[in-house]
Amino acid sequence: MPETTPRQDLTDAPEGAPARRIGVIGAGQLARMMLGPAIELGLELEVLATDAAESAAAVAGAVRLGRHDDPAAVRGLAAEVDALTFDHEHVPTEILEEIEGDGLAAVRPGPSALVHAQDKLVMRERLTALGHPCPRWWRIDSAAALADALAEAGGRLVVKTPRGGYDAHGVMVVERAEQAQEWLDVHGELLAEELVPFTRELSAQVARRPGGEARSYPVVQSLQKDGVCYEVVAPAPGLDEPAQRRIQQLALAIAEDLGVTGMLAVELFETADGRVLVNELAMRPHNTGHWSMDGAVTGQFEQHLRAAADLPLGATEPLAPVAVMVNLLGGSAQDLAPGTAAALAEETRLKVHLYGKSVRPGRKIGHVTLLGDDAEDLLARAHRAERLIIDGPEAAAAPAGRPETTAPTTDGEPR
Amino acid sequence: MPETTPRQDLTDAPEGAPARRIGVIGAGQLARMMLGPAIELGLELEVLATDAAESAAAVAGAVRLGRHDDPAAVRGLAAEVDALTFDHEHVPTEILEEIEGDGLAAVRPGPSALVHAQDKLVMRERLTALGHPCPRWWRIDSAAALADALAEAGGRLVVKTPRGGYDAHGVMVVERAEQAQEWLDVHGELLAEELVPFTRELSAQVARRPGGEARSYPVVQSLQKDGVCYEVVAPAPGLDEPAQRRIQQLALAIAEDLGVTGMLAVELFETADGRVLVNELAMRPHNTGHWSMDGAVTGQFEQHLRAAADLPLGATEPLAPVAVMVNLLGGSAQDLAPGTAAALAEETRLKVHLYGKSVRPGRKIGHVTLLGDDAEDLLARAHRAERLIIDGPEAAAAPAGRPETTAPTTDGEPR
Repeated sequence: MPETTPRQDLTDAPEGAPARRIGVIGAGQLARMMLGPAIELGLELEVLATDAAESAAAVAGAVRLGRHDDPAAVRGLAAEVDALTFDHEHVPTEILEEIEGDGLAAVRPGPSALVHAQDKLVMRERLTALGHPCPRWWRIDSAAALADALAEAGGRLVVKTPRGGYDAHGVMVVERAEQAQEWLDVHGELLAEELVPFTRELSAQVARRPGGEARSYPVVQSLQKDGVCYEVVAPAPGLDEPAQRRIQQLALAIAEDLGVTGMLAVELFETADGRVLVNELAMRPHNTGHWSMDGAVTGQFEQHLRAAADLPLGATEPLAPVAVMVNLLGGSAQDLAPGTAAALAEETRLKVHLYGKSVRPGRKIGHVTLLGDDAEDLLARAHRAERLIIDGPEAAAAPAGRPETTAPTTDGEPR
Repeated sequence: MPETTPRQDLTDAPEGAPARRIGVIGAGQLARMMLGPAIELGLELEVLATDAAESAAAVAGAVRLGRHDDPAAVRGLAAEVDALTFDHEHVPTEILEEIEGDGLAAVRPGPSALVHAQDKLVMRERLTALGHPCPRWWRIDSAAALADALAEAGGRLVVKTPRGGYDAHGVMVVERAEQAQEWLDVHGELLAEELVPFTRELSAQVARRPGGEARSYPVVQSLQKDGVCYEVVAPAPGLDEPAQRRIQQLALAIAEDLGVTGMLAVELFETADGRVLVNELAMRPHNTGHWSMDGAVTGQFEQHLRAAADLPLGATEPLAPVAVMVNLLGGSAQDLAPGTAAALAEETRLKVHLYGKSVRPGRKIGHVTLLGDDAEDLLARAHRAERLIIDGPEAAAAPAGRPETTAPTTDGEPR
């Protein structure tokens, strides 16, 4: 397990000045949604994109082409900015350690924190050592070890690749050890976890600055579909104040224990007896926090940038009693414009966020948000807007309500 | 006076499809603040900038270099987009008429509407013909005519150049006709207006789509300093509901009568007897509407783009009982970062918008917004943040409150 001793930022900490130039590794929708807040805060953002047509690269003022796993490309970006941050967690840890070691740029979150969002085995070991609640888990280095774990667990386990997974990728349920053989051959080690009989999924987001200032957002309820975040209600319905605070404290403790800088999302399982178990960590803006762009005093993208720049964090209070967010996953409409116009006409309070990505079935191509008082009503309206946008205005003829099924995610996108 | 007969948009009206590519003529802070909403709505924005370092050009993904008064440059932009809109009103009417006549792009607002924001004589003639309340005014084509008007008005008049003015530019108070001789020589005709003994200035903003759909924002109170917008309170304190509605109806009527597309700001004088008189018109996002970026369901920049793209307009309801906006006019700090960090640390709910412009005394370099319940308290806090940002953290030692004086505007910026 890598050392998690906090390192000092070498480039700008001595002067204590906030970073002005921020480099974002990756150019997906998360980098894209940082652009607006960066412009307003007067921060110069440069994105590292594999392709000039990527979501953020298509609209950013400053784009560098290169891969996130190419040391020269990442170092090239680092040399031009004060601080590096991330659209995804797939940057090799060594590249970031070298940049930090050389003082080329501040890395926020730093590699010693980020590794816990990159490597699920490292995460489980560390959280367990810290005493934070996790599902039962096993380090699997052979089919025999997996067979033993299966026997211990009652015959079924969730198996995850330690690195490289996202959404439903790198996750499968196994009942026989051979099912994981191919992944074992590729990855050497796997993480196996009990199937938690959860009643629902929650997400707790916090932001943390380099010096330790931290703020928590309301804990939200998230609903996945085919392993992809689909619907979020903020705050989580029926979660009383003590439970909200307890879960926020857990997320704040994890952020502090791991030395996170920027946004941290702690995805949680809630069990029937009211306990929560940590499912995943993400150290960047997260799909379960998109509601805050429109629904909180400080949206998660602005907050992440403030933390990455070492600017004071902003208030996280919601702007309405309830916010709902529904993801737009690619449907039958290739051209989103007619459906978007129809949805905006029906829902004058609707906030639409489109990612500028080509439409493929199940692909995350945008999201919508509504603020109000009644979660059920807001969800029905948000799903109605979703259907109009992803399937086109002809869907308007169908009755309103949550769609029962959509195309399975065949090529899910990160985050 | 040019004809104001509405023209049809030639490029996209037949299909009724919303515009996807929007060209913005001018690259100041208004174009800059359109970028975030354009990214979220999935609209492709291209700005026409005179210089690559201009506020919007420095951060936009698509920039075309060229002057707003160069027909080739403006036509070049028009040829690449579905609809043209504006950061300022200084584009020669003929260039826009040709583009509209050739069907090169939709022009929103169209030149037949825009001329009323470009030419103050045209505006006064038209509003008077329509019966909308104006100060007493005179068309001045000679020193003798001005002398007569001065005699009629009691010895003092405000004289304005019909075109090219902004903020305090192109406006002066005269007591002797000779004072305006130089402007008369340059402009041929001038507008003279009575000095209205107003109790305060109000601003009424509405948005209007090509087809006529229109929405009004709460009427706000604005305070100028040296002819530059300095402070806005939304809604205007003490303005009762009937007065709010009456003024909103006036602005909606003007938008409809003139065939405006996009945001229209109607700047008004409120008199001691509760009447309002139209001072100026602006057909674009306006400084008095900046509060809505953070304080309304649909901010004015998003709304302007929705109108320019012919997308349905969004709700204009405020997100809090009171919003205040205070402009950041260049002060003693050249580097805004330390003061910004100090202001954000003091006011966790503060929204800071920086324009990326070099600091010159009195120049509009940004603005701050606060939402809450108590206008006086919010203003005191916003002005405290303003002083921290424009003068640096050392100003923190000084007592809080509104500064009494600042440097005069020697080179004010539009809008």
